Amino acid sequence: MKSETKFELKKIGLIYTPYENTAPYQPVEEKEKEFFVIIDEEFAAGVKELSKFKYIYLIYVLNKSDKTPDMTVVPPWSKGKPVGVFSSRSPLRPNPIGLSVVKLKKVAGNKIFISGADVFNETPLLDIKPYIKDLDSKKDANNGWIEDASDFEHLALHIKGIPHEY
Amino acid sequence: MKSETKFELKKIGLIYTPYENTAPYQPVEEKEKEFFVIIDEEFAAGVKELSKFKYIYLIYVLNKSDKTPDMTVVPPWSKGKPVGVFSSRSPLRPNPIGLSVVKLKKVAGNKIFISGADVFNETPLLDIKPYIKDLDSKKDANNGWIEDASDFEHLALHIKGIPHEY
Repeated sequence: MKSETKFELKKIGLIYTPYENTAPYQPVEEKEKEFFVIIDEEFAAGVKELSKFKYIYLIYVLNKSDKTPDMTVVPPWSKGKPVGVFSSRSPLRPNPIGLSVVKLKKVAGNKIFISGADVFNETPLLDIKPYIKDLDSKKDANNGWIEDASDFEHLALHIKGIPHEY
Repeated sequence: MKSETKFELKKIGLIYTPYENTAPYQPVEEKEKEFFVIIDEEFAAGVKELSKFKYIYLIYVLNKSDKTPDMTVVPPWSKGKPVGVFSSRSPLRPNPIGLSVVKLKKVAGNKIFISGADVFNETPLLDIKPYIKDLDSKKDANNGWIEDASDFEHLALHIKGIPHEY
């Protein structure tokens, strides 16, 4: 199987958000709005014990564009400087795979309530993985090229989705 | 495009590790061994500025098994208790997508040196994303059902890959 170069994946559910035409650049908590995932019935038993996690990874298909991706992009946080597509979270990438860390609120059968997700409504879900603190929360991580910005502290409020007035 | 249920993805490179037949359950730093990624030439420009990040996400194909996945699994850390496949990092899942947070050491052209990866040698790579501290490092995350284990503190050393003698 090592020589395979194409892989077929399937939808296992859908992500429901209030975003039809625009979505934020990162998961933002919007307390008045509902964000949830519905897992297809055949996979529903796969969420057993998921509710014990505070955060989960959603892996999904970025299917809103069929443009050919450029290898360099100019993300909103780069202040005009081009960076490689793999150095960015741009939705237009060689494989249209999206990844978000979202806060888990409640699991009710095959419906998973989350507190925010930076994806369009009815985005096809490929996988859910638990976000395991001891594995995934890297205290010594950095913000890469984003820290190059002269107004990084202000930018960080945007990245974290923290409301601010300046 | 919303009604699509099958998605074709492609290899963008390969992950090289010392693991041919067994691999650890999480990325473990092995200083004497080489771990690296080679990005296919056509995508190589996508790594511009990647070297500024301390950690990156690798998204890859778990192609070592073609068994049909069960919706519940018994991971090594669960002490015999079944948990849902989406509550686990089991390699046998509805979509064979693997996700690892790895430490970035050096980028040299299309070769990316990393300090460890819990994947088999020549694993097909689907995507690289920057691990952005302000977005991905969740201080208030937990370890979910893993914390239920009576010897969780000991288990945590395994999860973190910290050598210990008891």
